Amino acid sequence: MTKLDLSKVPVKTGSIYPEPYAAMMAGRSSLRLGDAGGLTQFGVNLVTLQPGAMSSLRHWHLHEDEFVMVTEGALIMVTDAGETAMGPGDCAAFPAGRPDGHHFLNRSDRPACFLVVGTKAPSEVATYSDVDMMVHMSAGRARFTHKDGSDWSGPK
Amino acid sequence: MTKLDLSKVPVKTGSIYPEPYAAMMAGRSSLRLGDAGGLTQFGVNLVTLQPGAMSSLRHWHLHEDEFVMVTEGALIMVTDAGETAMGPGDCAAFPAGRPDGHHFLNRSDRPACFLVVGTKAPSEVATYSDVDMMVHMSAGRARFTHKDGSDWSGPK
Repeated sequence: MTKLDLSKVPVKTGSIYPEPYAAMMAGRSSLRLGDAGGLTQFGVNLVTLQPGAMSSLRHWHLHEDEFVMVTEGALIMVTDAGETAMGPGDCAAFPAGRPDGHHFLNRSDRPACFLVVGTKAPSEVATYSDVDMMVHMSAGRARFTHKDGSDWSGPK
Repeated sequence: MTKLDLSKVPVKTGSIYPEPYAAMMAGRSSLRLGDAGGLTQFGVNLVTLQPGAMSSLRHWHLHEDEFVMVTEGALIMVTDAGETAMGPGDCAAFPAGRPDGHHFLNRSDRPACFLVVGTKAPSEVATYSDVDMMVHMSAGRARFTHKDGSDWSGPK
């Protein structure tokens, strides 16, 4: 079926981050709509953030474009420029390789949702703006390092 | 600015289709949000269909994945399976190379909108399900042909 039945798309929770960062992703869940629809060239996720939750650590992508549209509720986008309030219909674009990390926070008292699209590049490097960590993705495997390239060994 | 100011994104109208099909696209307009945000790997367009308008001729893409989320109003999606009613939050996915053409019709009495994402492949072929026409895209140029590959010379 071409139209997606969102009630049948598995709700994904949890995080691939090492601790203590994985625990910070509590209250975040997502539906992998692109995967559910058989798409392979880009991912499309519908993310729900409960009150107090965040979308990710603040990060930027080296090889992959990213696009977000808020679909429900009230979110705060954080970038190097500071905080920006966003509501339903508001959009943001993050071109690959622009070293300005972003994430979204739900500081409201009800759930908020956004649609996020990201290219599926053969390999990827994401850099976390506010902590000494990067992730190197290749063939579906993630390797976390410090920003000097050494294996990740915990917060410094 | 990372958050897009939709009021400053140019409203695109018109069609690259040859006549008589270009005229059938009256009442359709779009905002090229991905381009406005500096993205190059996939396009993200916010399309508005006035009452009676259609999104495109019914078509499928050979190389490019496509994803749609309805954001406002009521639309009819048409595929080989027939008609499917869609409203805000409803999503559909069209994997590259699946030969099942789709388009969206606004049969309601008020405007309807959807967000559409499509990969930007180096070259592309789209096939129109209901008419004897294809388009071959390369380096930003479009060449329309009949389905036997001959130059397009009008409806048969």
